[in-house]
Order: sequence, then C-alpha cells, then structure tokens
Amino acid sequence: MDVELLTVGAELLLGFTLDRNATHMSRTLAARGVRVTRQVTVPDDVDAIAGAMADGLARADAVIVTGGLGPTPDDVTREAAAAVAGVPLELDEDALAQIRARFTALGRREMPETNAVQAMVPRGASVLPNRRGTAPGLWIETDRGLLVLLPGVPHEMRALLDAEVLPRLAEGGDAVIGSRTVRTTGIAESDLAGRLGDLGGTLGVATLAFLPGVEGVDLRLTAGPGRGDEVAAALERAHAVLRDAVGVLAYGEDEDDLAAVVLDMLRERGLQVAVAESCTGGLVGARLTAIDGASTVFAGGVTSYANASKVRDLDVPADLLEREGAVSEAVVRAMAAGARRRFATEVAVAVSGVAGPGGGTEEKPVGTVCLAAVVGDAARAVTRRFPGGRREIRERAAQAALDMVRRSLLDA
Amino acid sequence: MDVELLTVGAELLLGFTLDRNATHMSRTLAARGVRVTRQVTVPDDVDAIAGAMADGLARADAVIVTGGLGPTPDDVTREAAAAVAGVPLELDEDALAQIRARFTALGRREMPETNAVQAMVPRGASVLPNRRGTAPGLWIETDRGLLVLLPGVPHEMRALLDAEVLPRLAEGGDAVIGSRTVRTTGIAESDLAGRLGDLGGTLGVATLAFLPGVEGVDLRLTAGPGRGDEVAAALERAHAVLRDAVGVLAYGEDEDDLAAVVLDMLRERGLQVAVAESCTGGLVGARLTAIDGASTVFAGGVTSYANASKVRDLDVPADLLEREGAVSEAVVRAMAAGARRRFATEVAVAVSGVAGPGGGTEEKPVGTVCLAAVVGDAARAVTRRFPGGRREIRERAAQAALDMVRRSLLDA
Repeated sequence: MDVELLTVGAELLLGFTLDRNATHMSRTLAARGVRVTRQVTVPDDVDAIAGAMADGLARADAVIVTGGLGPTPDDVTREAAAAVAGVPLELDEDALAQIRARFTALGRREMPETNAVQAMVPRGASVLPNRRGTAPGLWIETDRGLLVLLPGVPHEMRALLDAEVLPRLAEGGDAVIGSRTVRTTGIAESDLAGRLGDLGGTLGVATLAFLPGVEGVDLRLTAGPGRGDEVAAALERAHAVLRDAVGVLAYGEDEDDLAAVVLDMLRERGLQVAVAESCTGGLVGARLTAIDGASTVFAGGVTSYANASKVRDLDVPADLLEREGAVSEAVVRAMAAGARRRFATEVAVAVSGVAGPGGGTEEKPVGTVCLAAVVGDAARAVTRRFPGGRREIRERAAQAALDMVRRSLLDA
Repeated sequence: MDVELLTVGAELLLGFTLDRNATHMSRTLAARGVRVTRQVTVPDDVDAIAGAMADGLARADAVIVTGGLGPTPDDVTREAAAAVAGVPLELDEDALAQIRARFTALGRREMPETNAVQAMVPRGASVLPNRRGTAPGLWIETDRGLLVLLPGVPHEMRALLDAEVLPRLAEGGDAVIGSRTVRTTGIAESDLAGRLGDLGGTLGVATLAFLPGVEGVDLRLTAGPGRGDEVAAALERAHAVLRDAVGVLAYGEDEDDLAAVVLDMLRERGLQVAVAESCTGGLVGARLTAIDGASTVFAGGVTSYANASKVRDLDVPADLLEREGAVSEAVVRAMAAGARRRFATEVAVAVSGVAGPGGGTEEKPVGTVCLAAVVGDAARAVTRRFPGGRREIRERAAQAALDMVRRSLLDA
C-alpha cells in the first residue's frame, strides 16, 4: 500500500515548527509495511489543501493529512476534504456529544460554541474518536481513494494513529522494513566506531548506522524490505552480534529511556534512590519522575544551587567546599552521602558542574562536571568534560548521572 | 516571489531523519521576503524528482531542491533537473577542478573517480561553489522557471544558501513577510478566541493564528509580503491592539521563555526564589536553571516526592497532610512556606498533583494539580485540571507554577 502524507500549517512553511509528525508517521507506517511515497506541506488554504489531496490520491492509494482540524476560522482541512470527496459537510451529533463530554471531563461547565465546528463531518465519513483532544479524526473513503484526517497536535495524532488508523490499514500488509536500535552512553562516536571496527560482515544483510546525540550514541540496524519473518530473523541475528560487541556500554534498546532502565533496576533490587543536584537544577529528578510509577523508587531530592544549601541541606562540610570548590569529586561525594542520609535511601547520586556560559576557569572550564553515586557503603566519583552549550552540558550531565547509578548497580 | 522546497531522500520518508533543512530554509527565506508556498519530500527516484520539480514550477516562481547530489548511483537529482530543463548533462571542468582541490585540501592524495559525476552539470547552469563539501550547488534558469539544487548535508546547504542563493534571489525583489508572536498561558484556545472574538478588522492587514501547545497558546501575527518598513509598521499596529486585548495573560513575545521572564522579574525586584516540587519532580527547578545566570536568583529546591519528605524537609504538618491529602491547596501552601523558610528566600512556589496514569480518584482525577506561590507574607493557591498524559500534565504544571510566580509578582 502506498501512502502520501500531507501536513497542513502555515507555521511549518514559515519555519517556526519542525515537522515531527511526518517523521513519526513515516517511521510507524514503514514498520507496518505501508510505503510512504511522498510528504507534502501546504498552508492553511482550502484550495492548496484540496489540490494536494487530489494530486496525492491520483498517485497513491491513500493520503493521510495532519493539521487544520481546530476550532478557529483558519482550520479548513474539513472543507477541503469534503470538496475532494464531492460531498457536503454535516453536523455529526455523536462527534458533538464526544466534544461536549470532553469539556465536562476537564471540569469546565460547557463547550464554547466555537468548538461545534469540529463536529462537522463530510457525509459518509467515519469519525475516529479523539480521547486526548477535541478534534476527532476522520476516515473518508472517496471515489478517488482513501483520505484520513488527523489532528496536528502530536500526542493526539499519535494516539489516533495507533488506536484507529493502523488497525484499519492492517488489511493491506506486504513487505516490511525493520530496524532495531542499541542505545549506548558514556563513549564518543569515534571511540565506539573503533571498538566495533571489526564487525565487518558479521551483521549479515543488516546495515549499521551511528546516531550520536546528547543521550549517547544510538546504533541502528536496518533490514528489508522483505517478508516480515525474514526481516525479523535477520535483525535478531545482527542484534545479537552487535549487543555482544557493545557490552556494558549499552543501556537499552529502541525507545528505551535510561531513567526507566535505572528505575527498573532499582525496583528489582528493592532499592530507593535520592538525588542531589547543582548544575542540573532538578533535571535528574525530572528524568526519573517522568516515568510512570517512579514514586515507589524515587524518594526525592535536594537542588542545592547555592553553596549555603549544600552545607545546610546536604551536610557538605563547609571547609571541604572551601578547599575543593563546589565542582569537585570530594564535594559531589559528600552531596550524594548527604542526600542518602536525608532521604534514608540505599542509593543516591549527585551532580555539580560548570554549565556555562559563565563560571569557567582554566582548571575547571565550562563543561566540567563532577558526578558521584553511592550504593550502600560503596561510593564512586568521576569528573567529565562535556561539549556543547549550557543546555547540552546539562542534558549530558543528567544522562551521565543516571548512567552512573546503572553502572554502580551492575557492579554492586 | 513564491518558492517551493523539494527535499530528496528515502531516509526522510522512512522517518529516520527530521527534515531540519526545510525548516531552516523556510525561516531564512521568509525573513528575506521569499514566500515558501509548499514543501515536498520525494524518494531518490528520477521520475518522482522530475515530476515534483515540474509541478512546483507550474505553481511557483522557483523550486529549491536539497539532496541527491552525492557521488553514488542513487544520487539522481542532477539527471532530474536536466530532464526538466530539457538540456543534456555535461562535464564542467571548473567544477571538477574545485572537487579535486577539495580532496587535496583535506590531505588526501587524489579524488576517487566516483566523485567526477558531481561535476556533471545541466547545459547552461551556473555552478555554486561548495567550500564545505564536494557537491557544488547548481542555479538553473529554465523556460519553466528557476531551479536551484543544493546539497542535503545541513551545514553545506546553509553555507551555500547564505553565500550564493540569497544574494542572487535578492536581485529579484525586496518584499518581506514579517511576523510577531504574543505568548499567552493559563487560558484555553477556545476561551482566548472568545475573548479576542471582536478584534475583527482592528488588526489591519495582519492575520492572526492561534498556536496551542503545552506552554500555552501562542498568538502569531503575520503581515506581508510588502516593503520592509510597511510590514514592520503594520505588525507594530496590530501587535499593540493584540497585546492590549490579551492583557495580563501574555507573558512574552516571540521566543520568550516564561522561566526567563520570571527570572528577569525577580532580578529587577532583587528577590530570590525557592521551589518545592512533588509531581513535577524537579521540572520547575530545571526550567529556571536552564536560563543563563539563574544562580543569582534561584536559591534551590526540595523535591519531596514521598510524603515523609514533605513533613521532614518542608515542615508540612503531618496532620494537615493526613486530613487534606498531598494534592490539596492547604498542603501546597505549606510546602511553599516551608521552601521559603528553608532557603531563606522572599519568593517560593510549590506544586503537588496527580500526574497519572495511576493515582487518580473520583474527587481528584489524573490531571488535578494544586499550585501555591508565596511572595513575602502574601500567599495564593489554586487547583487546576490539566489534559493529556503524564508528560503533558507535568509540563503544563511546571508552566503554571512559573506563571503563578509571574502573576504573584505583578500583584505584589
């Protein structure tokens, strides 16, 4: 099955927004064997949208459209689809009831009348209920081919794609392209490439790509197009070889988040963790608590941004702070120990560094970050030097702090 | 001048790569008054590329193409352009010499013969020298309109766009498109639309778009194409009307971050802030410390994820916690007061809520968040109900906490 993607929105053509929706849909559809043959972005203009829909249906089996389903007058995707399908727009009472119910559920008295337009539906279309927002999706089988309309808000689009669109498309599956990713952290791309240099032909038909980012270097294996079971088997073989070569540097697979990996390890061992943060300002705690069910494992943390707080709230000896400086292995060790005592946990991690742009010295330039982890009575500390600006340094530091907990638990 | 962007590359349609090139070009061109009317992505297929080029030239004045200029057999953008222009490809000796020189400059002995294909040029085209890579850009004036071919490697594309393409386009005209954004938070899109409903014709030639997101609703005014001074004046007038209508709901403009706005307000008033977080787990502190120079204003925070920590570290009375529950206005008031005392600041903010997916009750469903802000002796608290999943609820809660500080400071 060939599909074209159509993204609607002036803000994309003005360069204000990255089109993450198209990327997500392409990846998700390819994994299900649906080939995305073209991606088009047009402004919120009814003629441009209708023209692109008609062009797409002339080339492909279906056009999936995102955006332009909101309640304001510049949202005209519904009108364009009705024009292409050659049918009128009609009020769908069920859709209207769903939208009203959504306002009630959010604790607001009643739906503003402006939202009623979101229940206008091309005659004969199926309404795809949106549990995360007010704009329902629409499934429109026209004489020219299939039109699917989805909201542009990313989490609403993703939920509708998974719950409503993929199951309906599933009837058409043929050759698939598959990929698996091994996620590493704590090693530079070139060092990792050197380490993996002799993998050579051992990956079979799968190809390997290095994808460096602030969380580390992802290693992506890709195989296909081919039959689903053959692609899966080829990936499985290559993955086993790769995972073996990467060893302890790998913290997870595919979409795995290091924070979730760490929480799982703690949970399995029946341990709790506390954090003491300085330059990351709460980022390590935010990473951990982003994961469902963090509360059984994460006790809490102190963000001791000011030095006085390191002494008062984490019992860092004032003379140690004076002698070694806030960015030192001795001080992060004391911070971790202090957090562990305060929150009565077995595990604690601490971060202190120079995130920049100011505050660097010759001895401790911007990017210098000290990290410490404590598991029971065992403590370790390290000093790292991260590249990038303030944001990247902080994100790399938070990731390194989480990885320090992982490595400490592996060795405990 | 109307331009369409054409991106060539299978990896984009497989969803492996975000199309940052299109975003960068759109933004850069819009700022120079070049209107991007459509963006299209096609795979490395000569018919698909040529078809998209021809379609684009039928609608717009020019098509700017990125990608498919490499030395491998799947790089077919040159062939497609020659077919559309109706001319043969010929070897350009100057281009070949530049490519050879680039290999010498990189310290390699000689150019691999595969790279010679990058010097094949449609007859009559101008070669745009690429100082950062081997693929030269091409400027092709055809009977159907202008085709510009640029390499897909982002830093090469950007350098060629700035050095070669923009100056040549500037000769064509100087009309610009301008925009200004007013950022609001704490009000739903439909309520804001209702409130602004009667702005009607008072915005002059500027158009207004509503852009909802987890940080609030951005209101973007766009004017042009037109003369630079006229566009700026039209935007200035419309902006004054809009800002006046939005009032205190607006926290900033364009790229403004609410955390930076709050830090600036605190700095101007000579105040420091502390945070007490539960469901946001460090996110409010992370937002504040993401900003350069936060350390003069942000004292620190306690993430009291466990109830025991709320009592021990923030002096929340245990009987209050028992009676009202952790997600209550009384408890967040006590948390804010406790953080203010612990960090000896004038200002403090506290958040406690049900981020989900578990933990909701009929009385306090998932999305219920209590927030409190203290400025000196004045305290306020509020209960909100946020939509979305765990991530969205937490991000909305952090934004609401920052806005609560802003509103408290305005009223102080």
